[in-house]
Amino acid sequence: MSSNYLNFRNSVPWLILLLEVLFLTRSYFLVLEHDGVYWLYSSYPDFQDVNHMVIFGFGFFLMVLRRYGFSSTGFNLLIIVLGVQCSVLVEDLLVSFSLEAKEGILKSIAKAFISMTAVIISTGAVLGKTNLVQLIVMTPVELIVFYVSRWINRRYLEIGDHLSLMHVHLFGAYFGLAVTSCFPEPSPRLDKNRSTPKSDLFSMLGCVFLWVFWPSFNSLLIQSRMKALLNTYLALAVSAVTAFLLSALTSKDGKFRMTHIHSAALAGGVTISFTAETISHPWIAMILGLLGSAITILGSHCLQRCLNPPLKIHDTSGVHFTFGLPAVLGGLAQVVLLVIREWTNSSSLGYLVLLHIGAFCQTISLALITGFITGFILNTRLLKIIPVSKYFEDQFYWEFPHLAVEF
Amino acid sequence: MSSNYLNFRNSVPWLILLLEVLFLTRSYFLVLEHDGVYWLYSSYPDFQDVNHMVIFGFGFFLMVLRRYGFSSTGFNLLIIVLGVQCSVLVEDLLVSFSLEAKEGILKSIAKAFISMTAVIISTGAVLGKTNLVQLIVMTPVELIVFYVSRWINRRYLEIGDHLSLMHVHLFGAYFGLAVTSCFPEPSPRLDKNRSTPKSDLFSMLGCVFLWVFWPSFNSLLIQSRMKALLNTYLALAVSAVTAFLLSALTSKDGKFRMTHIHSAALAGGVTISFTAETISHPWIAMILGLLGSAITILGSHCLQRCLNPPLKIHDTSGVHFTFGLPAVLGGLAQVVLLVIREWTNSSSLGYLVLLHIGAFCQTISLALITGFITGFILNTRLLKIIPVSKYFEDQFYWEFPHLAVEF
Amino acid sequence: MSSNYLNFRNSVPWLILLLEVLFLTRSYFLVLEHDGVYWLYSSYPDFQDVNHMVIFGFGFFLMVLRRYGFSSTGFNLLIIVLGVQCSVLVEDLLVSFSLEAKEGILKSIAKAFISMTAVIISTGAVLGKTNLVQLIVMTPVELIVFYVSRWINRRYLEIGDHLSLMHVHLFGAYFGLAVTSCFPEPSPRLDKNRSTPKSDLFSMLGCVFLWVFWPSFNSLLIQSRMKALLNTYLALAVSAVTAFLLSALTSKDGKFRMTHIHSAALAGGVTISFTAETISHPWIAMILGLLGSAITILGSHCLQRCLNPPLKIHDTSGVHFTFGLPAVLGGLAQVVLLVIREWTNSSSLGYLVLLHIGAFCQTISLALITGFITGFILNTRLLKIIPVSKYFEDQFYWEFPHLAVEF
Repeated sequence: MSSNYLNFRNSVPWLILLLEVLFLTRSYFLVLEHDGVYWLYSSYPDFQDVNHMVIFGFGFFLMVLRRYGFSSTGFNLLIIVLGVQCSVLVEDLLVSFSLEAKEGILKSIAKAFISMTAVIISTGAVLGKTNLVQLIVMTPVELIVFYVSRWINRRYLEIGDHLSLMHVHLFGAYFGLAVTSCFPEPSPRLDKNRSTPKSDLFSMLGCVFLWVFWPSFNSLLIQSRMKALLNTYLALAVSAVTAFLLSALTSKDGKFRMTHIHSAALAGGVTISFTAETISHPWIAMILGLLGSAITILGSHCLQRCLNPPLKIHDTSGVHFTFGLPAVLGGLAQVVLLVIREWTNSSSLGYLVLLHIGAFCQTISLALITGFITGFILNTRLLKIIPVSKYFEDQFYWEFPHLAVEF
Repeated sequence: MSSNYLNFRNSVPWLILLLEVLFLTRSYFLVLEHDGVYWLYSSYPDFQDVNHMVIFGFGFFLMVLRRYGFSSTGFNLLIIVLGVQCSVLVEDLLVSFSLEAKEGILKSIAKAFISMTAVIISTGAVLGKTNLVQLIVMTPVELIVFYVSRWINRRYLEIGDHLSLMHVHLFGAYFGLAVTSCFPEPSPRLDKNRSTPKSDLFSMLGCVFLWVFWPSFNSLLIQSRMKALLNTYLALAVSAVTAFLLSALTSKDGKFRMTHIHSAALAGGVTISFTAETISHPWIAMILGLLGSAITILGSHCLQRCLNPPLKIHDTSGVHFTFGLPAVLGGLAQVVLLVIREWTNSSSLGYLVLLHIGAFCQTISLALITGFITGFILNTRLLKIIPVSKYFEDQFYWEFPHLAVEF
Repeated sequence: MSSNYLNFRNSVPWLILLLEVLFLTRSYFLVLEHDGVYWLYSSYPDFQDVNHMVIFGFGFFLMVLRRYGFSSTGFNLLIIVLGVQCSVLVEDLLVSFSLEAKEGILKSIAKAFISMTAVIISTGAVLGKTNLVQLIVMTPVELIVFYVSRWINRRYLEIGDHLSLMHVHLFGAYFGLAVTSCFPEPSPRLDKNRSTPKSDLFSMLGCVFLWVFWPSFNSLLIQSRMKALLNTYLALAVSAVTAFLLSALTSKDGKFRMTHIHSAALAGGVTISFTAETISHPWIAMILGLLGSAITILGSHCLQRCLNPPLKIHDTSGVHFTFGLPAVLGGLAQVVLLVIREWTNSSSLGYLVLLHIGAFCQTISLALITGFITGFILNTRLLKIIPVSKYFEDQFYWEFPHLAVEF
């Protein structure tokens, strides 16, 4: 370990420095334009909501492991600030090559936050198993691939800008799963990848933050935000109720399980994300929230028993059922609602359905393929894989004044 | 216990399902109107503040018991999302019977949040003593009774819409007290209904949230919000100062007591709630904050020693002195200020005073009467009373991976 | 101790009462004007952000000591509410003596929050070493001196209102350092002034809050806020990245140190505070964030080894390197940027540079001189110095139901 460790020490700061120099160099050519002023003035509170939600909410939401609290919140902050700068750089390059219209740096940052959610979701799948070098390499790779995926969706499949951003949960979850499948599985007897009541409470704190700010997230870039806000709110409310309902029904003795509540309460927000803008009947939003929550809890049982063991996938914080399955359901719901709405207009219906299904499949398959490749690269000796026995340990990364490590 | 437990398992999910089906059925007849658009656009940040405050603030504020943290935050979320849907349904039915004007679903949700505060306050009084079935039954019952109380106040006593909503603290506290008086008292030697430094810190976190967002709460539905915001802010500031002052004066050795700070810091916000809109001299708001805080701390000493033991009332998180007494004081202050303001206009003065006192007494007496009835119903065998020895236990409701239960 | 203790009991409440009576008396002459209405309406969400950040963020940010959590959050709340009222009173008196223009109470409160940051920073330096009487005496003294310093800057050195407020970090840090140098040093073997993983996590929670809301803080009083928001955001992002980079480079084994992350992540916001409004090239903001973070981490190593031991300064939560050094850097950056911008206009350049350097030196020297005097006064027997062995103890101030004190 010690030689690996020295390598780790050598590489992390230089890697960060390299990225930062890159961002600084590029920002040299950037001047604050005034085109973004009006966007900012009306949207600053919502921008702040999403900023708050991503930094604070996800940071504490991922704090489920008993010995990994410092890394969960600390690395989340680092990954997000790196990723947001990286995302602004990518968008800037796309503008220079005239692949995209100029939008002003403020809107870029807002979009960067939403795109970063994909990376955060993916880190949830490999939580505690990657070292920081691997996380830092993964961040720009995933962001760029997500940009490519969005670009394909927008250019060839005529998906709108907001909708293409909402594929973020789908992309993040399947990319993360593909990456984690390349990592060696921790021993099932390992104690460190469990939660304690204390870590569960901090995670609940993060979950409630995400829950409260999710309507702002789903409607940040939409012109007419009223419907999106309301539909998201209703879907979240129903999914929180369903989470309790199904948690009691499916677990032993009818007790609630905290992880069910954490993941299923948010499922409604993920499920509704594709359609929040267009649904005009609140009951549809509520039904989607219910189904999203149901698929999350049923998925958590099925996946952990049937799918993950044979495929040797270890999904630390359950992103597959928390974000992946509800997003798949949301995609299906979008197509079904489209068919119902455009039923009379049968000429273009088939084409539209094909486009949506295409965008959907393209996102998943690109996420899976690039995820496998990334996972494979991350597992090369170059990036200093951490031994399975050192998984889920804050002490590997942080100085502790004492030896007290569990919190 | 085991047979009770199986009953509990059988009934909770079906009860939730029943309610949810009801809400879904009704929402089928609902279309998103556009009348609420303008209200939302200007008020969304404040709506978000109140949402944040109720879900997050109260969830952590109630986390005072050492072994009841999961239930405090989790059940708070469940009760609120159920209650908000229920409240929207009730308002909708009132509109169908032409008892109320149509207002748009957005404003309904905002009002629902404020109404739900009554239920949350009541759950504070029975915290840890009710099982979830009892809580879920209590929620719609209390909401409907609060609607009836508000309707009487508005219809027969000419109280405005905003003012009738502000009776929420009064109603919640006395309803909760009446309910809790029907429950058997826990043994005074019981250790579980104490707090630990850790649970106190989480509770402080919730308290600070409530403190910061209280001005938004008190002014959410007011047209000219400037005065209400400012008066609430001043009252809160003075009551926080007074909380420290009186806590040191009244407790042994001049040390501060955390529960005093928790409850008395918020007392100013409760006391000013009836009059925030109308006070034009800041010193009146400040004096009200001071008196509210004083009555809370003195009340906490008197009630716990003199009133509660003979009446056999066990008020877990002290809602009587945290919300009840300051609200009574606020009601009195409202009448006194009215008398001073309308002194010259002696013709209508008596009538106005009578109306306000009537509304006040009607709210308290309806809360007490229906609270007793509800408490009586909740204690029937049908709803599976939990034995006193199982009070204040997360383990009764939640699965724990290990046996570590104290947090 | 016991006799001291009784004195303590006797004096704290009366001191608070005295101050509160003063505030109430003055508020008697205050009427809610309407000039502030428009300011409030557009700025309420930002006012709320800063309120939230100061009360909640600093309260938890300062919770680094293992046995001082109740006092950190509780006393922070008390000091702020006292200070805000005191600050409004001072501004009011200045208006009566026609030294300042009338502005409306709402803007006064907003400015009071920003001024209070100086006091909060100073309390960070003496955290755990002062009793509450000393803190309460220090609050109005420091506030008034800061007012005097700002008044000199505005009147004689032609510094704008916003810019003079931004000297708050500089003033707070050096005032706190001068005060703490008068207190006896705790024994280096003392265990109580260390952090635990748990207190570090709560402190991280506060740090993330401060990080998220810092752009609102830096731009609260600025007319054209777009640039200030964006520059602050970029500086914060870069400083968070640099914090990780340098923490790994400078600490043993390349591990991260939590205190580095806490302080250096915020350094960018402090450094940029003087110039956020005027920088038009984002790369300058980013470089400033990088330098601010670097000076914080290097400073934390140098100061703790070289400067503090010979000078016998014990700076509990490291305000010198967290707020002092980045603010000095920010001041220098302001002058350098001014020189570059006004290079062509050589006639007034020298004069402008002199004014800025003068304001800068005046603030530091006034802070140091009055800080020493205040520290000297606080250490007289009259104010009941607490013995070194009782430093950093919640139990000295708070009632605990049990003897469990570490959290």
